[in-house]
Order: sequence, then structure tokens, then C-alpha cells
Amino acid sequence: MWSVIKRYLIGKPLKTSEEGDQKLGRFKALALLSSDALSSIAYGTEQIVLVLATLSTAAIWYSLPLAGLVLILLLALVISYRQIIHAYPHGGGAYMVSSENLGKTSGLIAGGSLLVDYMLTVAVSVSAGTEAITSAIPALYNHRVPLAILIVVLITAMNLRGLRESASFLMFPVYLFVAVITLLIIVGIAKIALGMAPFHATATVGAIVPGITLGLLLRAFSSGSSSLTGVEAISNAVPFFKKPQAQNAAGTLALMGALLGFFFAGITFLNYWYGIIPVEKVTVLSQIGTSVFGKGFLYYLLQFSTAFILALAANTGFSAFPVLAYNLAKDKYMPHMYLAKGDRLGYSNGIMTLSIGSILLITLFNGETSRLIPLYAVGVFIPFTLSQTGMIIKWNRERPKGWFTKSISNFVGAFISFSIFAILLFYRLNEIWPFFIIMPVMLFIFHKIHDHYQKTALQLRLDHSVPIVYEGNTVVVLISNVTKVTNQALNYANSIGDNVIAMHVSFDENPEKEAEFMIEFKKNYPDVRLVNLHSSYRTIIHPVVRFVKLVEAKSTQKGFTTTVLIPQFLPKKPWQHILHNQTSLRLRAALVAKENIVVSTYSYHFKK
Amino acid sequence: MWSVIKRYLIGKPLKTSEEGDQKLGRFKALALLSSDALSSIAYGTEQIVLVLATLSTAAIWYSLPLAGLVLILLLALVISYRQIIHAYPHGGGAYMVSSENLGKTSGLIAGGSLLVDYMLTVAVSVSAGTEAITSAIPALYNHRVPLAILIVVLITAMNLRGLRESASFLMFPVYLFVAVITLLIIVGIAKIALGMAPFHATATVGAIVPGITLGLLLRAFSSGSSSLTGVEAISNAVPFFKKPQAQNAAGTLALMGALLGFFFAGITFLNYWYGIIPVEKVTVLSQIGTSVFGKGFLYYLLQFSTAFILALAANTGFSAFPVLAYNLAKDKYMPHMYLAKGDRLGYSNGIMTLSIGSILLITLFNGETSRLIPLYAVGVFIPFTLSQTGMIIKWNRERPKGWFTKSISNFVGAFISFSIFAILLFYRLNEIWPFFIIMPVMLFIFHKIHDHYQKTALQLRLDHSVPIVYEGNTVVVLISNVTKVTNQALNYANSIGDNVIAMHVSFDENPEKEAEFMIEFKKNYPDVRLVNLHSSYRTIIHPVVRFVKLVEAKSTQKGFTTTVLIPQFLPKKPWQHILHNQTSLRLRAALVAKENIVVSTYSYHFKK
Repeated sequence: MWSVIKRYLIGKPLKTSEEGDQKLGRFKALALLSSDALSSIAYGTEQIVLVLATLSTAAIWYSLPLAGLVLILLLALVISYRQIIHAYPHGGGAYMVSSENLGKTSGLIAGGSLLVDYMLTVAVSVSAGTEAITSAIPALYNHRVPLAILIVVLITAMNLRGLRESASFLMFPVYLFVAVITLLIIVGIAKIALGMAPFHATATVGAIVPGITLGLLLRAFSSGSSSLTGVEAISNAVPFFKKPQAQNAAGTLALMGALLGFFFAGITFLNYWYGIIPVEKVTVLSQIGTSVFGKGFLYYLLQFSTAFILALAANTGFSAFPVLAYNLAKDKYMPHMYLAKGDRLGYSNGIMTLSIGSILLITLFNGETSRLIPLYAVGVFIPFTLSQTGMIIKWNRERPKGWFTKSISNFVGAFISFSIFAILLFYRLNEIWPFFIIMPVMLFIFHKIHDHYQKTALQLRLDHSVPIVYEGNTVVVLISNVTKVTNQALNYANSIGDNVIAMHVSFDENPEKEAEFMIEFKKNYPDVRLVNLHSSYRTIIHPVVRFVKLVEAKSTQKGFTTTVLIPQFLPKKPWQHILHNQTSLRLRAALVAKENIVVSTYSYHFKK
Repeated sequence: MWSVIKRYLIGKPLKTSEEGDQKLGRFKALALLSSDALSSIAYGTEQIVLVLATLSTAAIWYSLPLAGLVLILLLALVISYRQIIHAYPHGGGAYMVSSENLGKTSGLIAGGSLLVDYMLTVAVSVSAGTEAITSAIPALYNHRVPLAILIVVLITAMNLRGLRESASFLMFPVYLFVAVITLLIIVGIAKIALGMAPFHATATVGAIVPGITLGLLLRAFSSGSSSLTGVEAISNAVPFFKKPQAQNAAGTLALMGALLGFFFAGITFLNYWYGIIPVEKVTVLSQIGTSVFGKGFLYYLLQFSTAFILALAANTGFSAFPVLAYNLAKDKYMPHMYLAKGDRLGYSNGIMTLSIGSILLITLFNGETSRLIPLYAVGVFIPFTLSQTGMIIKWNRERPKGWFTKSISNFVGAFISFSIFAILLFYRLNEIWPFFIIMPVMLFIFHKIHDHYQKTALQLRLDHSVPIVYEGNTVVVLISNVTKVTNQALNYANSIGDNVIAMHVSFDENPEKEAEFMIEFKKNYPDVRLVNLHSSYRTIIHPVVRFVKLVEAKSTQKGFTTTVLIPQFLPKKPWQHILHNQTSLRLRAALVAKENIVVSTYSYHFKK
């Protein structure tokens, strides 16, 4: 039943050998690896303006210098990630770089942050995508949480079916978005140049805004820096590039940085010039779109390509999370189940975990992007800081050619990332505190798991002692009455056993039945040793377990193994299971928990 | 965890031998066996008046002649049940009497009707009890469904704890109710006699009510006859009486009949004289109480003793249903699980089934007594008719002294019961139709179950052929890698096996790992035959099952048995289970479903 539904939703299992292998050129790589970064301009400017507008709309002009700061930050990150690309051509995720250079704990902090952050990537991207849709279709506004969950479920299903991140059709929405945003900026500036869009800013640059504080500006800056999330994606994917891999990857990263910078600057400028004020139900980008394009075809194209690239950005979470979970599981910090591939060759357990986590986040934060952003930012800039710091250590240890320049550029990256983290910590602790509860809990769990796997491996290690040769074996057969099953179970027991004991449990309430059974058994099996146990309660489990443990002790003394054989009926139709007592299942569970006892199930199959 | 909660709610298990045995005198028996019958006067009169008032309040005077008819019916039923008491001193439920004299199908119809009816007994009694409470405390009116469900849950818990129907404290509410109702009738009539309660009837007896039809009167009569439910209880409980059992039981039945008749007549008369009109939120009995006692202590005593005896009436359902289910299960028409006694010596499965069924009914019918009554009546009068008819057949077959008189009195009982059934069928089909869907479904299920148990017994019967002596046995051990577990599992396999095969599954994705394993295994176990299976998919189940079936075919040819040994890890703490793949469980399930294969579990217990 469940397997039929599963087949229908997920598709038939694929052979392991069907896994493809395809290398990426720059053009395709840009599309496939930059959706997370590029899509963040859909909410980046808005996040800055939102914070500033809490003081007054006049403060919005500050978004221009803040955007400048973000662009400097972008430049620094691109330069330092190019270093990582060259240093880790096999793909250097923050988890690996930090573990290798700063020690396991830093690696685990980076890894744990990223696990949470991928959930936030999905939650933020899908929430922002939903906002793009509801800006265009206001009627859907009240259904945005279910809509967002629906989108997550669709992306999950596609990934369980085995959507490759490399699927060519995924390039289309990225380049469409790039084209539409480029058009938006060009048309917007052209309109200004031609005098068709008069200056509407809420206050000109340099205007004095009463009440402005450094804290507010830093909070706005930290929100805007969320536009930089996703920059690291290319550095993790170096092995998927065509050769020369490092050069191609570095080139793609530079191109992506340029696009991102241009878009972010352009949108922030248009927002300032057109005097857009953030409102509740329509995104800032949507308002800019209306001002520049009017409410025509191009506006709707803008909204839907925005929604689409945001869905794609969420999808990058679905590529990255299972791989990171796989790496943590391989290092024995997460359960082995994250190592297993599903029917369609995806890491289904990772996909499902991410899906459930992000749906939880969307529900918890009511699908509001701006409430998710601070957590998202802290989750990004901690691993950024750690991996950049790791790189400094690496350069200092290895001292390759030009190591000092390399160190400096990574230092700038680390410093900026850490600064944003510090800003978040000082000015937005009321929003990011859950992170500091989740992180220690995750570290604790990672270590508990690691500890268990370590102990397991030690206990299982072969110690090359002389193999034990047992003298024989004792088989205890559970008999409830004298039937064909008894016959066959005893025949089987004789085939494997040196010492066969039939065990029967009698209940106090029916002494005649007990006597009857004893006579019938002795008549049919005069040679088999029968032990009749009495149960004062209405359960066979306790007396059986007690008796079997006695038998086991004796057997072990003699150098015998002990096997308990439990006969079980298998009806022809599943509904008939309810007609038979399932004592055997509970008895199995109780006996399996005892040491030195092998539990065997003899199944009697009904023909009718 | 669950077992701790269970212990707390239900109490510690009792020994089978702790079951008590206690015989009932008339005084105690009257209290314990008549709560169902006596409590029905709480709603009996109301049900007649409710139907009449749908025409006009003037029609209420008809309740007097209709009550007369009900009293005649009561007399006939008491006489005919006295016959059953004498004929079936071991307790003659409708299921047994009908099965024995009319054939199995009639017995099953009677049994099935009663199973449903006991659920209705609980639903009706608890609903009526809740109405008695909400009449006195109107604030609870909107919470009557949860209140009713709470009462059912409490009664269920008491029964699971092993409340004996014979518990002496249960006598108190019955005699309290008897005393309060007697007082109500005496005070009510005294007030009339002393002229303190002027004649207030809506219309005097004999007044012509326009629009009155035979149909309406019969519908009112059929509702009123619901007061007669519970009359059969004493005839089912003859074995619990002190000796001479039959005489004591018959005497108790007569006494109960007299009380019931007196109460029913008295309440109907007071209702008429005081001119009570049924209203939505206050029961008729509560209104009579207010008129007679005023809203003082006696009024509240009336309401709460009414609620209490109704809860007790529901409790009789909890005694009767599990016993009937036990009898049906003994005859193999219901699953064996209804034969098993729970920790506290009650038939827990029957108790739980009844509880769930009645909660479902209360929820479905929104706790409205009047909507449940017609179904309740049809479920009672079908088995009444069948068992009375069965008695006629019995007298005619056995022809004891006075058989003809006996036959006549049972004929009258059968005739009246059948007439009420016919009235319900013709005039209230729109309310009782679900019964005619449930009944055939139940009969179908009874027969399906019986059929299965019959076939099972036939298949299991020992055919005294020569026992097969197997030549030896093949043991297939599932090996995933070379560890201590491998060592121990192979040692065990050698202890029982004549032919041990190690079986390993390799996945296509990792050929180096495969070669490594092969070398390590051969180095450690040069003498063990190793079979390496390839899986194109990421599952071991299909290749293992395919291979084991091949081995089984060969073994069977050689006269060998086949055992599959699956090693399994048992972590020290339950949470650690999630850290180990549970493939072994799924593999067990797949192999157990195959014939001629015994599945053994070798458990490796982690110490740390």
C-alpha cells in the first residue's frame, strides 16, 4: 500500500550504476551555483530599508552608504573564497576547512551552523518567493504559510525523485532572472536620465535624520549582509567543474560577484531615487517593479522569475544539506542513515530532515522573511569566519608562495565576517538567541553520536583470539498445544539440536486442560523432554524468560549454545493476523534482549 | 514508559488465583442487577411525552394509556423471563438460548444485536446521566459531550482496574435512587391529595386532540418500551445467585418488575398531573422534581442519584459486553483476543472495544438520548423476540410438565417484542436504518472469522504420519563486515550447522571496499564458504531473499533444513538504535514470509 504510493510519487528505484557524471562549464555553473546568492537581492535591499524605516522614512538614504559597505564586504569575500578554491580543489566546505585547520570542535561548529543554516536558506528563500507571489496576487496573502509549505513539499518531492542539481532546465529561470533584473535597472536608470522619473527620495543623501544611532545603522548593515549568503557555494563545488577546475571555478565566482554587486547597487539606488517605503503586503522589489515597468507583463515576469529563482535557491539547500550530513555521518558525528542513498540515488534521509526542519521554521516564524533573516545571517557568518580563519592558519603553516598576501586577504574576510557576527551579537541578541541554544545542543549530540560509534568500533574489533568451538547446542521449543506445527517445529529442532527441550506454559485457571495437554504430548512425543511452566499471571513472557535463562546458564557451562525456537502462524491474508495472538512477537523482543540466546522463528504458513 | 503509565492507571497485575468468588443474596442481587432496568425510568416517560408533544402538548394525556400498555408488556416479559431462569439455570443469554433452539444464525443475530446494544446501553445511560447533571447545573450544558466521554473513560478505567460487578459499595446508589424516587412519588401524590398541587394537565384524559394518528401513538409506545431494557439482566446472572439459585433469581426478577412498574406508572402520572412539557435543556424528571420538591436539597439529591444510577447502568454494559464477546470468541466467531484476561483479571480487550464504540456513538449522536433510543430499542427487542421464540421451540421439543402454559407465556413475550420491533420497522425506519447495515456486516464478519478458525484447526490437526527425520541442516549467515560479531555468529552457526554458508552483499558503487572485505574474510575464515552477492540497487533484501530461496531448494532436496542467521546489534541505550541501520528487521520480515526457512537472530549486546 505505502510502497505503491511511494512508487507513484517518487518513481521506480534506479540502479546504482545509473548515476550520471557530468562536468560543468562556466556558463552552466554560473546558473546552477549562483541562484542562492543572486536570489538574495530579492530581499537584501528591503532588509536594510526595513530596519532604517523603523526610525523614519527619511533615514532611508542611509541605505546607499550601507550598500557601499556591503559591496566592499562582497569584494573581500570573493577574493578570499577564490583563495579557498585554489587551496581546496576537491571542494572545501566550511566544515572541512575548519576541521582541518582549527580542530574538530571548530569544524563541528561550522558544520552544525551550516546544517541549521541550510534549513534557514530553504525557509527564507521560500518565504521570500511566496512574498513575491503574494505581492503580485494579493488574494493569496492570507494563505502564504500553506503556500510556502506547498512549495517546500514540491521541492522535496522533486529531490526525492532525484532531481540533479545539474539538470539543464534549471539554468533557464536563473538567466531569465538575470535578464529581467538587468532590464529593470537599465530601464529604471534610463527613465531617470530621460527625466521620466522625477526625484522622489524620502530625504536626500546627507540629510540630517534626528535620532539616528550607530546601533541602528549596524543593525541595518547586518540585515543587508544577508545578501551575501550563498557566495560560498561555488567554492564547495570545485570538483564538478570542467578542467582546469580551479581556474574555471574562480572565474565563475568573480563573474557572480560582479553580477551580484551590480544588482544590489542598482536596486538600492532605484529604491532610493523612487522613494520606495516598505509596506506590509508588497515587497520593495515589487514596488520598484511597478514604478519602473508599470503593472504590465514585465512586472509579472519580474515577480514570477523572482519567485522561481528563490525556489531554486531553496533547492540549493536540498543539494548542500544532504552532502554535509553525509560528510558528518562519514566522520561518525551523525547517524549512519545519512550515508544511505534512496531508491532514486538521492540521500533521502537528508532530504527529508531538511524538508521537515524548514517547514517547521516557516510555521514557527509564520513565513515572515524579516524575522528569519537575523538567524540566517548568524548561521552564515559563523562558518564564514571559521573557514577564513582556518585559511590564515593554513597559509602560516604551509607558507606557499605569496602566503602573506593570501593571509591578508583571508584576514580581511575573517575580520568582516566576524564583525557582522559581533554586530548581530550585540545589537540583535533578542532575535538570534535561539542559535546559542541550538548550537551547544547540536555539539552535544554530535559528540554523543561520535562517542557511541567509537565505542562500537572498539567493541567490534576482531581480537584474533582462538575461535571458540562449541561442544553442541540446546534448543528450547515453545509449545502451546499438540498440532502439525508442534510436529514440524520439533522435527526442525531435532535437525539442528543436540539437546531438544519442549517448553509449555500452563495457566492456573485451567488444570484439566493442562493435564490433557501433558498426556497428548507424551503420547505423541514420548522421547522429547517436556518442561511445564506455571504462570501465576496471564502472560507467558516472564516464566519463559526465567526458564530460558536457567537453560542458557547450564548450556554455557557445558559449552553448548542456546537457541529458543518460537513457532509462529502466518495467515494467508493480512487481516487474519488479528485473529491470532501476537505473543510470539513480544516474546521475541523479550528474549532478544537477553545475552547468549539466539531466537529463531519457525513460521507455519497457512495454505487456506 | 507506557508500562509505567499503565501501572499507575490500572494497578499492578493480579495473580490468576486472586480471582474471588462470591454468591449474591436477593437484596444485593436486586441492587447489582437492576440498575439498567430501574435507571431507564429516568428517560422512559420522557421518551413517550417527547413523541406526543411533537403533535401538541394536549396529546400528552395519551401517555397514561400508553404507560398502561408498557406495564402489561413488562408483566409479560417478567413472566417469560422467569421461565428462562428456570430453564437455563446456568445463565441463559439471548445468544445461547437462540443458538441452541433456533440455530446458529439466529444466535449470531441475537449476539450481534446485543454487542451493538451494550454499546448503546452505555451511550444512552451516560447521555441520560449527563442530561440529569446538566439539568441541575445548566452551565455545563454546552460541555455535555466531553462530560459524557469523561464519564465513559472513568467507568472504563474502573473496569480495567478490575471493578467487580459484585462490589458492595455499588448497592448504595441503587437503593438511594429507589428511596428518592419512592419519596418523589409519595410526596407528589400526597401534595395532590392535600390539594397543594392543583390539577395542571395540558388536557384532561379523553380530550380530543386533532391530528392524532395511530402511527404517532405507536411511535410514542415504542419509545416508552425502551424502559424495559435491562429486564433480561437477571436471567443471564442465575449462576451468581445463592442457592436455590433459580428461585432466588425469579424472586428478584419479580421484585424488580414490581418496582419498575410502580416507578414508571408513578412518574408518568405525576408528569400528567403537573402538566410537564418537555423542554430542551431540562429533563422531564428534573421538572417533576422541581415541582414536587422545589429547588432544594431533595431536588439535587434526585438529580445526582439519577446520574449515579445511570452511570451504574452503563457499568452493567461493561460487565455484559466482555462476557458475550468471550462467549462468541469461544465459539470462534470473534477474535481469540477476547478470550484473554488482562492484568487485573478483566477481559480488557472487550472493555476497550465497548469503551471506544460507545464514545463513538456519543460523539456521532452528539450525546442526545432521544436520538439513540430507537436504535437502542431495536437492538433490544430483536434478541428478546429470538430468545422468547427459542423458548417456545424448546418447550415443544422437550414437552416438560406444563409445557403448554409455559409456551403460551413465552409466546406472549415473543409476540409483544416482535410487535415493538415491527412498529419500529414501519414507523421509525428513518431512525433505525443503520441497524440493518451494521447487522449483515457483523454476521459476515462473524462467519469470516469462524471460517478462518475452522480452516486453521483443520490445517493444524496432527495427521500421525511418520515424523520426518532431516539429514542435516544448512545455515546461511549474513555477514556485512569482519568484526567480533562475525566471529561469534560463525561460531554459533558452526555449533548448529552441518553446512555453513557466509553470505555478503556488495553494492556496485564501491568495488575497492568489496575486494578488501573478501581478502579480510578469507584471511580470517579460510574454511568458511563465502558467497558474495551483488546488488544493483541500494537494498540487500531482494538479493538475499533470492539467494536464500535457491539455498533452500537445494537443502530440501538433500533432506536438509534451512536456517538464516541474521546478526543484530543491541545498543545499551534505546536512543542509540537510531544510530544503527535497521535492515535486519526488514530482512527478517521478508524472509519469515518465505516457506521452509527458519529465521534466527543473533544479538550482539554492546557493553558500552
